[in-house]
Amino acid sequence: MRAVLIYGAGDVRVEDVPDPKLLEPTDAIVRVVQSCICGSDLWPYGSKEPSEKGSRIGHEFLGVVEETGPDVTGPKKGDLVVAPFVWSDNTCEFCREGLQTSCLHGGGWGSTDVDGGQGEAVRVPQASGTLVRLPVEEDSALLPSLLTLSDVFSTGHHCAVTAGVRAGTDVTVIGDGAVGLLAVLAAKRLGAERIILMGRHTDRTDLGRDFGATDVVAERGEEGVAKVRELTGGHGTRTVLECVGLEPAIETAYGVVRDGGTISRVGAPQYPTVPADFGTFLRNVTLTGGVAPARAYIEELMPDVLDGSLQPGRVFTDTVDLDGVPGGYEAMKNRSALKVLVKP
Amino acid sequence: MRAVLIYGAGDVRVEDVPDPKLLEPTDAIVRVVQSCICGSDLWPYGSKEPSEKGSRIGHEFLGVVEETGPDVTGPKKGDLVVAPFVWSDNTCEFCREGLQTSCLHGGGWGSTDVDGGQGEAVRVPQASGTLVRLPVEEDSALLPSLLTLSDVFSTGHHCAVTAGVRAGTDVTVIGDGAVGLLAVLAAKRLGAERIILMGRHTDRTDLGRDFGATDVVAERGEEGVAKVRELTGGHGTRTVLECVGLEPAIETAYGVVRDGGTISRVGAPQYPTVPADFGTFLRNVTLTGGVAPARAYIEELMPDVLDGSLQPGRVFTDTVDLDGVPGGYEAMKNRSALKVLVKP
Repeated sequence: MRAVLIYGAGDVRVEDVPDPKLLEPTDAIVRVVQSCICGSDLWPYGSKEPSEKGSRIGHEFLGVVEETGPDVTGPKKGDLVVAPFVWSDNTCEFCREGLQTSCLHGGGWGSTDVDGGQGEAVRVPQASGTLVRLPVEEDSALLPSLLTLSDVFSTGHHCAVTAGVRAGTDVTVIGDGAVGLLAVLAAKRLGAERIILMGRHTDRTDLGRDFGATDVVAERGEEGVAKVRELTGGHGTRTVLECVGLEPAIETAYGVVRDGGTISRVGAPQYPTVPADFGTFLRNVTLTGGVAPARAYIEELMPDVLDGSLQPGRVFTDTVDLDGVPGGYEAMKNRSALKVLVKP
Repeated sequence: MRAVLIYGAGDVRVEDVPDPKLLEPTDAIVRVVQSCICGSDLWPYGSKEPSEKGSRIGHEFLGVVEETGPDVTGPKKGDLVVAPFVWSDNTCEFCREGLQTSCLHGGGWGSTDVDGGQGEAVRVPQASGTLVRLPVEEDSALLPSLLTLSDVFSTGHHCAVTAGVRAGTDVTVIGDGAVGLLAVLAAKRLGAERIILMGRHTDRTDLGRDFGATDVVAERGEEGVAKVRELTGGHGTRTVLECVGLEPAIETAYGVVRDGGTISRVGAPQYPTVPADFGTFLRNVTLTGGVAPARAYIEELMPDVLDGSLQPGRVFTDTVDLDGVPGGYEAMKNRSALKVLVKP
């Protein structure tokens, strides 16, 4: 089959790789119908050391079950399923608590012997725990929105949930990438009253307004902090959703959070530490969030997608086939695309 | 009157200072009956630059109201009252949310024109919001335990509350100082099932066991982390109460917290940042806590002290008069005293 490999910064290739085979009795093989490129894929695309041997990449996909191992219960041949961005048994003590990203028997896509999501097919370990059936047909127009449950919408939701967003909450969302925009949608869904979106790309912040942002702040750094404080009586917002992962973004988060408030971060951090000095201590600011256990949220979010009341798939601005994936990376890197859908 | 001043590291003196006077109509004057030395007073005692002009110090006291300004409602002349370790109006938007440490009209003891708690009397700004009446006599044996509501017990309680300790929770408490021991007591009061106390001074950890610790880990650093993990099936505890404020303590906290768990810190941080890299991110660890809004907790905690079911005053191992305060600092610094009560 064909799949995407990354060889180093700026070097993504589509190559022939071995077809996936069942290795464990708990495996399934899924033919990928839709996949996509993640903002977090841009980190290795921007900085990975060159290597002779490429690495499989991609961790968001939905597709059709082609084969299952003898111990797989649930997913059956022919089912259309979505996979969260880590696989997990969904039965261990962490999974039972809704933290499938810490599953004792789980792991990531594109690791040893496990395919990446950007390819024609994937061996899915722990298939019973990992895969969630989608009650639509393979040609449904809902597929792009359902695909966002694998990561980007679930990640925005995780950010809002861990920050404590609920009815009436005030929120600042930092970042107008796909995660930031879907954090807006998630916050709105949870009942947030005021949602300030910090971003400077008008086409993106316009979509953010459609998703529920009540205010947009285009300024960055100290100027951006001052603007958010001006909008909030000088104090900032009780919840801050940090959806970037860069140091200036997390610093902005500490600037716009209200004393006693909560920052949740879901942007994969490209920084080693966060401020925690006496001044921060005096303000009783909570830092939470982390990698999103998407598996925990799929069933909860799916009904709103199925009935069309939420359309998270609007974050896909471009669609490519496998050969178009290298161009898709470049388009996301230079920001001409917000998020790229892949139809292998 | 006489009061304590700090002139630099290791240099605490008792001197004559002007008697406090009402400056604002919302002030009260309180004659101090009991005060004490705080672990956080040891930070300037250990490192303050020498200065010609001493600074007033002490932020925990209870006493008798001697005079009130015309706008004071509530506290009356002759009332025995306890003061939380910051003063606040208790009516602003932060106070109403229980975050009196961020009061828009509040401040700290021992600042300009405001007396420190280690002295014979104190001008109390925002007296109506700040002071809480104690329904006992000035000679009550409960006074030392009631004094802990001003800071040290309320701080331990804040740590446990913000960490999310509730019935059945597992807890690691880092530090066997007075705050750590009272964090144990607070966690026990909130229903924690397993309380692992990390500390290496047997006399202190014995008191911790009396307060509710189920396990004591004397090892520190990596060895201590390994021991806590061994006690908890390899995963650490869901809540961690960091009651020290030094970098090794907060590092230990990240080591012993379970994935998805919460670290609350109430030890005044002597470090600028905390770990927040990708590894931490993958574990979904929450960092919360901060300076404790003691005012928010006094009424809630007081009944258990008044009926004798809790005896937080057991953390006082030594009692001195004002002249004994310099020796009290030294005793706490060299750890011969756990916490020193001051009867001016």
